[in-house]
Amino acid sequence: MINVIHHSDVDFADKLNKLLVRDAAATQSVDAAVDEIIRAVQMDGDAALVNFTAKFDGHTVDNAAELEIPKSKLQHALTNIEPAVGTALRKAYDRITNYHRKTLQSSWQFAEPDGTILGQRVTPIERVGIYVPGGTAAYPSSVLMNAIPAKVAGVSEIIMAVPTPNGKCNPAVLAAAELVGVDRVFAIGGAQAIAVFAFGTASIPAVDKIVGPGNSYVAAAKRRVFGTVGIDMIAGPSEVVVICDSTVDSEWVAMDLFAQAEHDPQSRAIAITDSAEIAAAIQQVIKKLLPKLPRREIITKSLTKNGAIIQTKNLQDAINIANRIAPEHLELMVDKPQRLLAAIKHAGAIFVGAHSAESLGDYCAGPNHVLPTAGAARFSSPLDVRDFQKCSSIIWPSISGAAKMADIAATLARAEGLDAHALSAQYRRQDRKLLPENNIKNKTNKKQPRINLLVN
Amino acid sequence: MINVIHHSDVDFADKLNKLLVRDAAATQSVDAAVDEIIRAVQMDGDAALVNFTAKFDGHTVDNAAELEIPKSKLQHALTNIEPAVGTALRKAYDRITNYHRKTLQSSWQFAEPDGTILGQRVTPIERVGIYVPGGTAAYPSSVLMNAIPAKVAGVSEIIMAVPTPNGKCNPAVLAAAELVGVDRVFAIGGAQAIAVFAFGTASIPAVDKIVGPGNSYVAAAKRRVFGTVGIDMIAGPSEVVVICDSTVDSEWVAMDLFAQAEHDPQSRAIAITDSAEIAAAIQQVIKKLLPKLPRREIITKSLTKNGAIIQTKNLQDAINIANRIAPEHLELMVDKPQRLLAAIKHAGAIFVGAHSAESLGDYCAGPNHVLPTAGAARFSSPLDVRDFQKCSSIIWPSISGAAKMADIAATLARAEGLDAHALSAQYRRQDRKLLPENNIKNKTNKKQPRINLLVN
Repeated sequence: MINVIHHSDVDFADKLNKLLVRDAAATQSVDAAVDEIIRAVQMDGDAALVNFTAKFDGHTVDNAAELEIPKSKLQHALTNIEPAVGTALRKAYDRITNYHRKTLQSSWQFAEPDGTILGQRVTPIERVGIYVPGGTAAYPSSVLMNAIPAKVAGVSEIIMAVPTPNGKCNPAVLAAAELVGVDRVFAIGGAQAIAVFAFGTASIPAVDKIVGPGNSYVAAAKRRVFGTVGIDMIAGPSEVVVICDSTVDSEWVAMDLFAQAEHDPQSRAIAITDSAEIAAAIQQVIKKLLPKLPRREIITKSLTKNGAIIQTKNLQDAINIANRIAPEHLELMVDKPQRLLAAIKHAGAIFVGAHSAESLGDYCAGPNHVLPTAGAARFSSPLDVRDFQKCSSIIWPSISGAAKMADIAATLARAEGLDAHALSAQYRRQDRKLLPENNIKNKTNKKQPRINLLVN
Repeated sequence: MINVIHHSDVDFADKLNKLLVRDAAATQSVDAAVDEIIRAVQMDGDAALVNFTAKFDGHTVDNAAELEIPKSKLQHALTNIEPAVGTALRKAYDRITNYHRKTLQSSWQFAEPDGTILGQRVTPIERVGIYVPGGTAAYPSSVLMNAIPAKVAGVSEIIMAVPTPNGKCNPAVLAAAELVGVDRVFAIGGAQAIAVFAFGTASIPAVDKIVGPGNSYVAAAKRRVFGTVGIDMIAGPSEVVVICDSTVDSEWVAMDLFAQAEHDPQSRAIAITDSAEIAAAIQQVIKKLLPKLPRREIITKSLTKNGAIIQTKNLQDAINIANRIAPEHLELMVDKPQRLLAAIKHAGAIFVGAHSAESLGDYCAGPNHVLPTAGAARFSSPLDVRDFQKCSSIIWPSISGAAKMADIAATLARAEGLDAHALSAQYRRQDRKLLPENNIKNKTNKKQPRINLLVN
């Protein structure tokens, strides 16, 4: 069922490209629909929201205020969660929080010999909107992964939107929101949720940044409002590349391919091995184990359409192919995996060693499971605390520093034809050669104290 | 000419909103035109490029290869640059490089007591495209500000695109490109340059990330290709907010407003002061100095349409208004400016003290002059070395660590209905209770060495 491709095939590059090509169809119609939804929410606010929620989610309310899920309901969900799940959520919460604390950025500064101070002031984003998909894919783990870095960053207010088809919401999702400390939760989904996050309505405030995965409507809406608000990334279907050698247990590989494929028929699960024996074994094990799995239909569709076992001559070729794919998840199920690490150029998360199942990273290893997909690991990074902080540059020149810099700035400004830029720099020169008068009122900064600017 | 607004006016909020509103007109027609250009470049490659360059830039070539500006021309530009400008460029280069080196991120890892290793591998983006606007705004300083952080990050190949109206290019731009070490320069502009960066053609390779400012076509094209490649941000017109008290020299303030306004009639220059005397003085000085400036027509348009002097009761109100604006540039021209710093929530760059002219930051202070505009400082940061690096999470569990995490992951996976995720984690458990057979081949990782994974 799964495609088998040999790196030595003359048309290997074509086959790989075909495997990696994205379904671009339907994007234009999605864009048009999303434009209309966003315009309606901008224009009619709460009323549009109530309409779309009735239309798309079959959830009818009298007014937008009823779309807010009350705090009491969140608390109830956390109190009444199945104890084993509650314990697992809390353990995952602790591990994810611990890891993310290590990525918190701090303000910094340095002083130059003339007393000029330069640096960056790092502050949290004020209000963040987290989108949580509903329906088939209501994942409490997504709530943890999106909200914890925001909390660690010190975001003041976290607002969550989750569609509730026919008014029903996954209680584990609500419990996770309560556990992390999400401030407000709204039963809204799709492009209309993204529009509310970007522009606000009378009853729901706009946010500064939107994070969280979603379907193609959500993705199109996020792209559309980017600039008005920040967004995390445009998430595509999930992917794994498993590089494995002859030391691997083929059942472990097969199960990892299944785990990826069970998300969605669009998911992409690829094993790359230098061992013909293992390539054959994986195929056999897939046949044996697949019938036992509850989501075998989705897995079959995914593996048939988007799955592959690629056989290479050696592991270096395997790494080269993985770099070409720049996968969201990369597993190194080989002997001495650390030897391969330096050659890896692009991957969202690297799972090192045969014991590092991707699902550990999906739930609780600590690093974020929101990762760049569809080759975006070439230029972007896992979701992080840094995505919920922003920097302001600090430029505090001493008087002599300002004079020195003024000469450089004025020369370049004049070369660019920007005379006011030049004069603005030169007006600060103490000698003020260029000025018609000399009534310097400014007495500050004469003895500029070299203090720490950046203690928040 | 410049608007004067009092914070005490009953309709102050409306007046401020009106001042901050963006021209949304023309965006739809721009989007449609850009879509067509991008599709043509994707479809017809080099031929489309040659056509668009003849059509939009009046620069006719026989084939796309001729659009590359040869290295010899870059070297010639640097050798023959006016010596004072060359010296200023080199000094700016040194200061910008020195500052940006301090923002270089490194790989990091930590080990848990059970031997599990977690961390992040930080690597440079491989190939970057820098867009440099041409025509009225061909700025060598933009080349430095966009290319230096890429160089510091270790980007392997930097490709620059700059439109050359009628085949003419600003030699200072070419000199700056040569100074920084840009690898290849192409005489291409507009949406077609962004399309080439995103998709490549037979003669020009696609890049992984696009940075650099541009007009509304360039901005629309960047938004459109975001996801296929990374982009820096969607740049709007430039802005400054100058907060000043009675200690300030009003000529300095006026000159800073001019410097901002001279970019473009869309530029926004706002002074906020708690002193009625200074508010009046700034107006008078504007009248006095403006006629002497070469770009007085642009400045007049900008100040009339988008400029303002806002008078407040006190400096805290001034800061609150600045936070509402979240300006690209914020100048603190007040006595003891460091006292205000902690109250500032959002700003791209903060110029501390009366001697800190924005133009020092535009050219040579060190921090980047590519900054979030139009309120984007609420959620984004100055361009930085980090924008040219990306992270891969590292997850290397020890055997006992993997077993512990497997319990958590399996519980949560089952709660989410993802059985293959649960099994994938649990298959690694040494006890393997769940498995039909027990032919563990995997012998690796038994004694996992706690080595440093991240030495590149």
